[in-house]
Amino acid sequence: MSEPSKPQADVRMRGFSRRTTVDDALTWLDQQTGPLADESIPAVDAAGRVLAASVSSRVDVPGFARSMMDGFAVRATDTMGGSAYNRLPLAIVGESMPGRPFGGTVGPGQVVRIMTGAPLPDGADAVLPVEVVEIEETRILTQGDVSPGKHVGRVGEDVSAGDVVLPQGRLLRPQDVGVLASIGTADVAVVRRPRVRIVVTGNELLPAGSMPEGARIVDSNGPMLAALVKRDGGVVLNPGIVPDRPEAILDAMRSEADVVLVSGGSSVGQEDHAPALVIEHGELPIHGVAMRPSSPVGMGTLQRRIVFLLPGNPVSCLVAYDFFAGRAIRTLGGRSADWPYRRTVAPLARKVTSTVGRLECLRVRLTEGRVDPLAIGGSSILTSTTRADGFVLVPPDLEGYPPGAEVEVFLYD
Amino acid sequence: MSEPSKPQADVRMRGFSRRTTVDDALTWLDQQTGPLADESIPAVDAAGRVLAASVSSRVDVPGFARSMMDGFAVRATDTMGGSAYNRLPLAIVGESMPGRPFGGTVGPGQVVRIMTGAPLPDGADAVLPVEVVEIEETRILTQGDVSPGKHVGRVGEDVSAGDVVLPQGRLLRPQDVGVLASIGTADVAVVRRPRVRIVVTGNELLPAGSMPEGARIVDSNGPMLAALVKRDGGVVLNPGIVPDRPEAILDAMRSEADVVLVSGGSSVGQEDHAPALVIEHGELPIHGVAMRPSSPVGMGTLQRRIVFLLPGNPVSCLVAYDFFAGRAIRTLGGRSADWPYRRTVAPLARKVTSTVGRLECLRVRLTEGRVDPLAIGGSSILTSTTRADGFVLVPPDLEGYPPGAEVEVFLYD
Repeated sequence: MSEPSKPQADVRMRGFSRRTTVDDALTWLDQQTGPLADESIPAVDAAGRVLAASVSSRVDVPGFARSMMDGFAVRATDTMGGSAYNRLPLAIVGESMPGRPFGGTVGPGQVVRIMTGAPLPDGADAVLPVEVVEIEETRILTQGDVSPGKHVGRVGEDVSAGDVVLPQGRLLRPQDVGVLASIGTADVAVVRRPRVRIVVTGNELLPAGSMPEGARIVDSNGPMLAALVKRDGGVVLNPGIVPDRPEAILDAMRSEADVVLVSGGSSVGQEDHAPALVIEHGELPIHGVAMRPSSPVGMGTLQRRIVFLLPGNPVSCLVAYDFFAGRAIRTLGGRSADWPYRRTVAPLARKVTSTVGRLECLRVRLTEGRVDPLAIGGSSILTSTTRADGFVLVPPDLEGYPPGAEVEVFLYD
Repeated sequence: MSEPSKPQADVRMRGFSRRTTVDDALTWLDQQTGPLADESIPAVDAAGRVLAASVSSRVDVPGFARSMMDGFAVRATDTMGGSAYNRLPLAIVGESMPGRPFGGTVGPGQVVRIMTGAPLPDGADAVLPVEVVEIEETRILTQGDVSPGKHVGRVGEDVSAGDVVLPQGRLLRPQDVGVLASIGTADVAVVRRPRVRIVVTGNELLPAGSMPEGARIVDSNGPMLAALVKRDGGVVLNPGIVPDRPEAILDAMRSEADVVLVSGGSSVGQEDHAPALVIEHGELPIHGVAMRPSSPVGMGTLQRRIVFLLPGNPVSCLVAYDFFAGRAIRTLGGRSADWPYRRTVAPLARKVTSTVGRLECLRVRLTEGRVDPLAIGGSSILTSTTRADGFVLVPPDLEGYPPGAEVEVFLYD
């Protein structure tokens, strides 16, 4: 190198003076985050979005009494006493089809052919199913009877005007979008999706899509983080590699974003610019967390942005994202803070050890119903997270788990 | 109506002559479906897609021995015997940074300052962490020793050239996309997403976004189906209402699509054109299934398309999609045929009854850990699926379940 490092840099190389607990880091983080403001979008595009306000209906659904069967709209009293042995003749005077109602009134002794979903004509109060009718040219012979209201869907049986159909905070399902359409919703207020700027630093990095070459490796954190952000409902802004210079990193961190994810250069080494920049231009209350992997993670604010300093090692980057950044993005977007991972409980195939005072996140496989911790623990081995079926946590107050211990597994799939 | 219906239409109105069992319908369906052909897409966009072929690496990752710590690249023999009480001086001759390796060779008695991830220089075989070093202007004093290979990540420790890194059929996770980038993958072969044409029929329907008016209701099945198709990895083609005329429906069913979903007009009523069209121009081996709701569902083929005739009643439409169409779309896209719903097991709050010979799908709520079947059973009540937390199946050989029975719940969220 050109010159030996300064003593101050050496102090900074010696590591974190104090590590925040995971719980304290989450407490701080949850104080910074809450659902963003709302925006209006077409209801037909709203599946997977979060309702910013409850939705009430201004209309009854259906807005008219409708037939629940294919058959004949009747005056119920006209069918009284009808049976296979006492077939009563009633005159067919018209037809009511879905969207094409019968315009007249059903009088005594009259019926109107009706299809499922079609409006019940005036004068009729029940539907005689086609199965209990013999049809002639201009009349029917009833082979059964019905009571008033039978096979009729009443006005508002699905939704009554004034009903709250979906509550604030609802992560909208496909059928919710159907209900919104049915009550005449054109646009709906949803929580804005957090905009997330990904800032990947490292002079050794080539952009994704390149072949690794010599001392240069290909950025894997950028595309991985972009996929994670999309999974958690965020909008990815201009992901890409930023030159490892303070002014370029600061400029990127000041993008119009709600969240900034800085990957690499986030620790306390001499080339780690991002922490100093956040301290100088914002606040960095958390830098270094008592966990493994991902202990160099940092969290702070830069104007109204939440900034996460994610370790460059890809496993640490993934775990730090999952513990902190993903939670913030989900919360800002109005979603549950919880992990999107399915959970299962199974016995450990062998013992695991952990350091007291530090939360451990272990990649594991599920083999024949048992939880098998992966032997490869290095946080630089990204394939350990692709070979893993999920992960197990060892809380900071435990030294580990004995073989056979029932542990909760968070599943990556 | 203008004229009484013809006898033939009356026969057709009288219902299905025979209902296929759900199992037989699934057997037929699974014979029609398998992963579609592959297409090449940028690896960075591949999260959530399914690999069409296994991916092997052409390179080692890393392609060079790298430091796992911040510290000094050393010849391990030079550190032997070093301790806090026997500090050994070694000369600093350079620096190796990530992407900026040291160009020379580390000779006896020499060290090179090195950062995590930087290439280990020639001549060095270990890294002495900065924590066990005292640094002066041009030399270090070792306060510990290391053995050869210590704190060095070997060539190929993450991926070795020739390794299969991801198997065929893999639903790609965010970290998988990271690994693909790390091995220099620009484009990747994934299973093509099924193209799904949604054909909504019904003269009573107004397009989503309208207010319901008079005898006209708003299409809820179209937007619901579009959201379901997207959830299951399909591409939605031109959803919208098609005039309830045979030629318009046939034209829409003949779209360039892998799957056609026809909503409404799928039963055996006189205005149900779609079944006759599929029979005339393709095959309709299944029409009517022994289940509730959704018994009028039909399945067939039209040239190479799989056509689903989904009931117009929205609950029936949702359940028929979930049982059959969604399964086909997931399978065509290379995904697991299984439902994407989380599952839980809990006791029934009260008894449920079912008809032997028919599979029953009950919407339920989970209340205080108990499964509470919704009282509203009508398949026209879409809000029953938004009030429900999920559903429970009663197999065709059971008459129901007693109160307290432990049942599996498929959760909508």
